[in-house]
Amino acid sequence: MRTAEELRALVESSLMDMKLSPELGELSGAMRYALAGGGKRIRPVLCLATAEAAGCEPERALAAAVALELVHSFSLVHDDLPALDDDVERRGQPSTHIQWGEAVAILAGDALFGEAVRLALTYSDPAVARELVEATLGMIGGQYLDITAASDLAELHRLKTGRLFTAAVGMALAAAGVPRAKQAPWRLFAEELGLLFQLVDDILDRDGYVLVHGVEGTRKLAEEAGQRAKDLLAEIPADTSVLEEIVAGLVTRTS
Amino acid sequence: MRTAEELRALVESSLMDMKLSPELGELSGAMRYALAGGGKRIRPVLCLATAEAAGCEPERALAAAVALELVHSFSLVHDDLPALDDDVERRGQPSTHIQWGEAVAILAGDALFGEAVRLALTYSDPAVARELVEATLGMIGGQYLDITAASDLAELHRLKTGRLFTAAVGMALAAAGVPRAKQAPWRLFAEELGLLFQLVDDILDRDGYVLVHGVEGTRKLAEEAGQRAKDLLAEIPADTSVLEEIVAGLVTRTS
Repeated sequence: MRTAEELRALVESSLMDMKLSPELGELSGAMRYALAGGGKRIRPVLCLATAEAAGCEPERALAAAVALELVHSFSLVHDDLPALDDDVERRGQPSTHIQWGEAVAILAGDALFGEAVRLALTYSDPAVARELVEATLGMIGGQYLDITAASDLAELHRLKTGRLFTAAVGMALAAAGVPRAKQAPWRLFAEELGLLFQLVDDILDRDGYVLVHGVEGTRKLAEEAGQRAKDLLAEIPADTSVLEEIVAGLVTRTS
Repeated sequence: MRTAEELRALVESSLMDMKLSPELGELSGAMRYALAGGGKRIRPVLCLATAEAAGCEPERALAAAVALELVHSFSLVHDDLPALDDDVERRGQPSTHIQWGEAVAILAGDALFGEAVRLALTYSDPAVARELVEATLGMIGGQYLDITAASDLAELHRLKTGRLFTAAVGMALAAAGVPRAKQAPWRLFAEELGLLFQLVDDILDRDGYVLVHGVEGTRKLAEEAGQRAKDLLAEIPADTSVLEEIVAGLVTRTS
């Protein structure tokens, strides 16, 4: 089994070597800019670790993993636009629309989504791409709730954050050929992990759940979600040690 | 064989009845707004007519046809944004970002693209979705050339307009199960049709090719492209009468 850090390195090198459609021309510069800069790559790492736990070579799930990171990056590029969150920085660097202009950022986001689907369609089983696209639609629905001041925080986060976490696991299971009837505990695990990620995010950013439950209350919710995630892993008859490592890392992360 | 007008009615009713992902919530209002308003539906009609000429029921190609119109609509919504073409009207109505705000228009465009792919993925053969996504990437590359003042007008239009015309034919052939080895004349026909469409568009808008070749010169180029399209249809051993009707309609269209 490879460690989470080894899987992250695999994702980074695959992102670096990735070929984009030649018809995108120089737009690819803005796309690569949006993808660089050292995100945590949590979604693709989760995808690869799930695939390996489910008994398939991580390399077999690599296109799915990279596709997830492209969708995540697309969502950040569009979220950062002036009409949406109007964020001028992302991970300490100028956000894509500041660096490349707003028009290029809109098109770069569109193209990142398109390239993600193209990668997901390299599998002969269209289930991989279906999983990605349905999750992306849910994520967009979550972004819509976010800009319309929705009151249901749990639903907002289930869509905006949770759907891509579930897709990370679902795409790995599809790539590994795990039959639908055996996917339930894996998928429940993914939902808890998405919730855990969001809770800790809100603790670090002092917003979202923290505004409702306070820091201590949100910390408690995060620990409970982490425990449920571990319990679900214990039900799965497979070596889920790397997934446990990922849960532990999310509970204690500080950035 | 159904006429082009009958096929257009089929597209309209399918767009009207289309179910969108429930997770999009009220964002679907802006998406339906962008899809309404009586466009020519030339891409989906071309897709259905090609499918029927290739020997399959048009209904079998309907999901592919609607997917094409969704991608076209997505491209218009994003193109109309202030950072791109800054168009406040579309077909005599306020453009989507004027009616719904810029943030919602960005997300509605994203979601139209996502729903298009979801529809294309209802086919068991992933070739239908692959064709759509690769064409969409080409189209985005064309939009990028358009905003960066590219000098190669033919390449710009091959990407921005032509790629979706080729996809309309390619998706129909995939849905109809026409083997790749027999697709060449169909695909060449689609390229000529895309060029013809763009030439006439430029005559009507007095831009693009007209700025280089004048109205008379562009009219001559359009007639030549129309003739080549008809010659290619004559090579195809099938009843291509409705496709001929589409060519004739494009040559003489006035709006």
